Order: sequence, then C-alpha cells, then structure tokens
Amino acid sequence: MRKIADSTVRRLSLYLRYLEEFETEGQATVSSEALATRGGTTSAQVRKDLSFFGSFGKRGLGYPVAELSTRLRDILGLSRRYRLVVVGAGKIGSALAQYRGFRQRGFDIVALFDTDQAKIGKTYDGVKVRSTGELEAVLSTEKPDIGVIVVPGDQAQAVADRLVEGGVRAILNFAPAPLQVPDDVSLKNVNLALELEALSFALANRIDD
Amino acid sequence: MRKIADSTVRRLSLYLRYLEEFETEGQATVSSEALATRGGTTSAQVRKDLSFFGSFGKRGLGYPVAELSTRLRDILGLSRRYRLVVVGAGKIGSALAQYRGFRQRGFDIVALFDTDQAKIGKTYDGVKVRSTGELEAVLSTEKPDIGVIVVPGDQAQAVADRLVEGGVRAILNFAPAPLQVPDDVSLKNVNLALELEALSFALANRIDD
Repeated sequence: MRKIADSTVRRLSLYLRYLEEFETEGQATVSSEALATRGGTTSAQVRKDLSFFGSFGKRGLGYPVAELSTRLRDILGLSRRYRLVVVGAGKIGSALAQYRGFRQRGFDIVALFDTDQAKIGKTYDGVKVRSTGELEAVLSTEKPDIGVIVVPGDQAQAVADRLVEGGVRAILNFAPAPLQVPDDVSLKNVNLALELEALSFALANRIDD
Repeated sequence: MRKIADSTVRRLSLYLRYLEEFETEGQATVSSEALATRGGTTSAQVRKDLSFFGSFGKRGLGYPVAELSTRLRDILGLSRRYRLVVVGAGKIGSALAQYRGFRQRGFDIVALFDTDQAKIGKTYDGVKVRSTGELEAVLSTEKPDIGVIVVPGDQAQAVADRLVEGGVRAILNFAPAPLQVPDDVSLKNVNLALELEALSFALANRIDD
C-alpha cells in the first residue's frame, strides 16, 4: 500500500465528517480554508492532503462537496461495510456493541465474547454474548474483518494471537498492554486509562503561574 | 514543567501496571528486560526512561518493585485522586461513568451531563445525569480537575469552551472534532470512529500478497 501517515488519514476522516454535514445542508462547494478549520490544520495542508489523491475542484471555486466526499469514502475504505467481533463484554465492550455511531459508519458488530458465565447469553442491541471458548468457531464462520479487544491487560495478547490465528487482519485494542502482531495485521490502540494518566501527569507536573 | 514526551509517559504507565502485578505477587525486584517486554520496548529504553527521574536499583539486582512503583505513581500524579465531569450521557458516556477501572486508578466521576430530557435524572453507579444547562453551576461548586467530552462533534468545541471558562485544566475528548484550548489546558483525544476508519483505510489499501 502507499505509505500515508496516520495523521493524514485522521485528517481525511475529519474532512469527510465536515463534507457530510455540508452535504446534508445542501452545500455544493467548500473552501480549503473551511476544511482546514474543521480538520484543525491549515488550508495549505488541506490542499497537500487532497492533491495526494488526485485533482479536485477548480481554483477559486472550492472543492465539490459531493464528489470529494465520495472520493474520501473510497480512499478511507468506507464504501463497504466491515464485520467486527468484540472480545470482552464489560462496561466498555457492551457499550461499544450498542454504539450506533459504529453502525452508521459501516461497522457492524457480529459477535461479542466474554469468559464470565453471568454475561454469556445476554444480548446487547441484538448481539448475544458468547463464551470466549467459541471464538475460533465464530471466526471461521463469520470471517470478521476487525477484532476489538476489551479484556484485562494480561489477557490481551492471548486474545490477539487467537484473532490473528483465526484470520483477523485488523485489531482495535482497548486493553492497557502493548500487543505484538504480525506485520500484515493493522493494530490501533485506544487506552482510556493511559490517556487519563497522561492528563494526571500533566496536572501533577504543571508549573502554576 | 519538564518536557517529557507523551510516548515516555505512556511507557511509564505501562511499567507501573506491570510493577503493580509484581507487587500483588510479592515479587521484590524486576529486571529492565521484564519491564521492557511489558512496555513494548527495549531494556536500554527502560533504563533511559527511569534514569530521567533519578537513580533506581542496583546493577545486577534489578529494580526494587515497591519503591519504583511508588515513585512512578508520584511521577504520574497518581498519589492523589482526581475529580471528573463527563459531558454527554450516551452509550459511551454512561459506560465511562460506570467504568470501575477509572475509580480504581483514582479518577472519580462527580457529575454527568446531557441535554436529552429522557436521560436527565437517570443514575449510573450513583452518578445522576444533570442538564447540561447546570454545567457552570456544578463546575463552580465541584471544581473538577478533568472534563470528559462525549458529545457529537459539532457540539464539542462549545462544551470545551464552557469547561475551560469554568476552570477545568485537563480535557479528555471523545468527540470526532479537533478542539482548540488555551496553552495551559491539557487535551487528550480518543476518537473511536477515527481509529476504526484508520483500520478500514489500512484494510482497503492493503496489498494482498
């Protein structure tokens, strides 16, 4: 694949959100300045980001909203739907299973797993919690694209290994543990506690004026 | 404050988790190699990270677990408790309010806000959802350390402005929008949808071998 920095991909996602709002409002064109504001960047950066993916818009007229948003959806791989499995049905895992934002963006949660007998059998938004023991069987029948890991840190690597072994090629990890995955597996980490600790670090080490 | 890279702070948090597991097991010392494995880094990096904060351990004996974990808690500002307000009581916001991991690490959610009448008055783990209209009043009485934003993207900046105006100096933002805050306010972003889109981008742009 072409090497595109994570930060660029992130800005493309933000531009797309703004374009979709504009589409809803019936706006036909948008300036690079407006996209820059929304993406937290400069108009020069917007033009650079977008020129990388081809030629859009006419000088002085701005970018065509509908065309650009379709193109960004294609670039981001959002013209299709993705199948997710979530391992860990605690507070965060079950909230993710019920989070409508995912489905709206094309991410369907097809299975939810936990080791806790008290949770197995419960249903969140139509998705039933199954025993983690069934993971391999479900991976082979459901063939999910993305695995979401929401288990305690000391169990996360074992779950990642099982997902990879079962053919999953993209992992979103919520566990506070660094995971090792093969080069052909994409990994993103979301660590809520670590983000909070980074804030507490900042608060504790602040020089009060 | 001393300039410490975010990536260093993140590794310190991971080392601390490992040390706490070791403390629970009654282990007295830990090697830099073991900490490196847990932090997803090298033993040279561990020694560098820790030497920055003073001298620990004796050559060949490893690091003293109890002493180092106390020191890391001090460095990370975790020797005290923090008061959080969460703005947005949707699926993710209400899950955060009930997430025990936060409280265990010293982060207490003292108030939860929403604009939706159907949500106002509900209670999550003892925290009642209040009208976002009461935000200023609550900020002035509760004086929270950290504000957590879990509202739609187009409402996030306005909420951030109100939190900052009300004296909050650290913000954890879950909204898919880049926020502008003054230099003396620490900001961390967690964007679940953007992380998923980064994965869909990777899956869509993969060169299949």
